[in-house]
Amino acid sequence: MDHKQLIDAVKTQMPSKRWEHSLGVMEAAVALSRRFGGPEDKAYTAAILHDVVKYWPVNDQRDIIREYNLPADLLDYDKELWHAHAGAVVAQRDYGVDDENVLHAIRYHTTGRPGMTKLEKIICLADYIEPGRDFPGVHNIREIAEHSVEKALLKAFDGTILFLLEKGKKVYPLTILTRNSLIEELNQTQQF
Amino acid sequence: MDHKQLIDAVKTQMPSKRWEHSLGVMEAAVALSRRFGGPEDKAYTAAILHDVVKYWPVNDQRDIIREYNLPADLLDYDKELWHAHAGAVVAQRDYGVDDENVLHAIRYHTTGRPGMTKLEKIICLADYIEPGRDFPGVHNIREIAEHSVEKALLKAFDGTILFLLEKGKKVYPLTILTRNSLIEELNQTQQF
Repeated sequence: MDHKQLIDAVKTQMPSKRWEHSLGVMEAAVALSRRFGGPEDKAYTAAILHDVVKYWPVNDQRDIIREYNLPADLLDYDKELWHAHAGAVVAQRDYGVDDENVLHAIRYHTTGRPGMTKLEKIICLADYIEPGRDFPGVHNIREIAEHSVEKALLKAFDGTILFLLEKGKKVYPLTILTRNSLIEELNQTQQF
Repeated sequence: MDHKQLIDAVKTQMPSKRWEHSLGVMEAAVALSRRFGGPEDKAYTAAILHDVVKYWPVNDQRDIIREYNLPADLLDYDKELWHAHAGAVVAQRDYGVDDENVLHAIRYHTTGRPGMTKLEKIICLADYIEPGRDFPGVHNIREIAEHSVEKALLKAFDGTILFLLEKGKKVYPLTILTRNSLIEELNQTQQF
């Protein structure tokens, strides 16, 4: 499918209000790709598809996690985490996406993972800062994203973890490993 | 060794100012054991020994981690984490402590671990709230510790993680697993 066909197909999978968020992520992903030399075409594809199953019934998301032997511990954590892993399966199975880098960008757009590719970082960050986002601190993250994907992403994950601390909710361990990896990366390049 | 002999031996391993903290942890550990029905004698032993190697040269702590095949990833994280694991080795090797529960209480007094025993929780919490501690929020944790070890410990770990977020430092993944485990335990007992 080309981008136009993908868009027409994926937008039917969610309420129109939610599709606006995906449009925002497409816009942000393309802008970040241009800014930081990421693969623009792949970023666009991943952005279109990143939330493809997010508004499916959670039972259907759970079934995909079980059926495709995705990390079972996801089911012990917030449902918010399920759609990214399940979405990568659906992107491949139902939309013919075979590029592993694009699939990883969809799969890890919520938790990240240690050693993310540039594309993965861009999709993850675009999801945080797309123009429709309006949470405390988003302006600061957008400012940081003018010059560093890694620093912006670190700030974004800090915010997520802080939110979970305040709410008394569990933190998915991979999120911490991702944050640790970003800190190491920044330390190594002396950006920190 | 009886407690008196242990105290005489262990206090030589650190500056007298630091020994005062260990005295505080002994006091708090005994008080918490009485309050929550923990094993008072073991709590006293673990408290005496919990920081036994903390003021050793860090190279010596690192050597123990390597020599005894303790979790190697500790060395990728803050040195503050090393003394607990190395201390459990030294408690057994040099002070004849063979009780696994006491050794675990020493080993996990900084990070905790999922499924901690009551003794482990008590030592970990005593280390946070002993009378000499004076960090922002300690009064609140002491108040919570009047009625729940788990809730107090959760609050204490939240503070540690928040501190690391603010400082831009890595979080040892076990700390997150411990916090997640405490939340599950509180949810299951409907204390939360």
